[in-house]
Amino acid sequence: MRIVVIGATGRLGVALVQTFRDRGHEVLGAARRGPDLEVDLTRPETIAAMYERAGRVDAVAVAAGEAPWKPLAELTAEDLRAAAESKLLGQLEVVRAGVPHVAGSFTLITGVLARAFLRTASLASMVNGALETFVRAAAVELPQRINAVSPTVFAEALDDYGAFFPGFKAVPLAEVAAAFVRSVEGTETGRVLELGD
Amino acid sequence: MRIVVIGATGRLGVALVQTFRDRGHEVLGAARRGPDLEVDLTRPETIAAMYERAGRVDAVAVAAGEAPWKPLAELTAEDLRAAAESKLLGQLEVVRAGVPHVAGSFTLITGVLARAFLRTASLASMVNGALETFVRAAAVELPQRINAVSPTVFAEALDDYGAFFPGFKAVPLAEVAAAFVRSVEGTETGRVLELGD
Repeated sequence: MRIVVIGATGRLGVALVQTFRDRGHEVLGAARRGPDLEVDLTRPETIAAMYERAGRVDAVAVAAGEAPWKPLAELTAEDLRAAAESKLLGQLEVVRAGVPHVAGSFTLITGVLARAFLRTASLASMVNGALETFVRAAAVELPQRINAVSPTVFAEALDDYGAFFPGFKAVPLAEVAAAFVRSVEGTETGRVLELGD
Repeated sequence: MRIVVIGATGRLGVALVQTFRDRGHEVLGAARRGPDLEVDLTRPETIAAMYERAGRVDAVAVAAGEAPWKPLAELTAEDLRAAAESKLLGQLEVVRAGVPHVAGSFTLITGVLARAFLRTASLASMVNGALETFVRAAAVELPQRINAVSPTVFAEALDDYGAFFPGFKAVPLAEVAAAFVRSVEGTETGRVLELGD
């Protein structure tokens, strides 16, 4: 298959590119600065341009998108808007703009915050809940398959983020990548693949 | 209690104002044009002004906010942005800006589309899923209580919307209003009160 990995230079993206290549797929890595395609999820015009350059692809896997972590009492109106921009509207736009270009499937990245709630993470929870509901709903309408991968904290990121997830089971990146493989190569649609809890 | 009902002129809002008054509360009705306070959920500055005029209140109940119904294949990038503006970011802003003004509770309106998926409603589902996850997450942090009321189609609106919900149980507005009463007068927080299914 010909697969676009968005967020190809991040921790998860690098693992996805390698995993899909190891399985014999042709992978186009997309990120703000290459490696193969440039895309910024906060700018819809770069998503359109990415699809034009990519040509016909079989699958899109997203491993990008940020959501703010900030105590609710300190949020500004602008924070609310920003929370919607990147991980949420960016991934929705990847799907919307991809409909004419993608033959097989979309796989989005969400996370445990859709179902576990931490101080300072209410907007991140909102974004993940929005995406997971969208995936279930869009599967009814889309000609393509669509799934989300929803892990807890990455085992490889425990040094940076472990303190926020006391007692949570961490997930090795290899397991997260396997869930993407299941979504891309399998037949499921409208699924949220929860990992680590 | 002193209660602000946002969307006071709509079908549900009228029922909420009446129900709370019948139960002896002081109700301030807010909507784009009065009756007591003016507010437009798409304009954060009007939400701030509403709270300034309302003074200290015990509870806020929201019965307003629109989300687009449109086939996924026909959506524009602008539709995605608009979907986030009113029902989603508008209600989030009611909570965010209300933290210093509200003593007791916030009650938001979501809907069955968070858990049932119809053609043309994927963005409405996304918005409802986002709000329900936010309510669960925000309850961890907020000093106020926060809940959502999530009904199927209103029995009183079956003529207009019944065709979109084949076989769904409709909910009389009186039951929806009762769920708001439970949220406002009760002790629960972080709950999504699902009605009609």
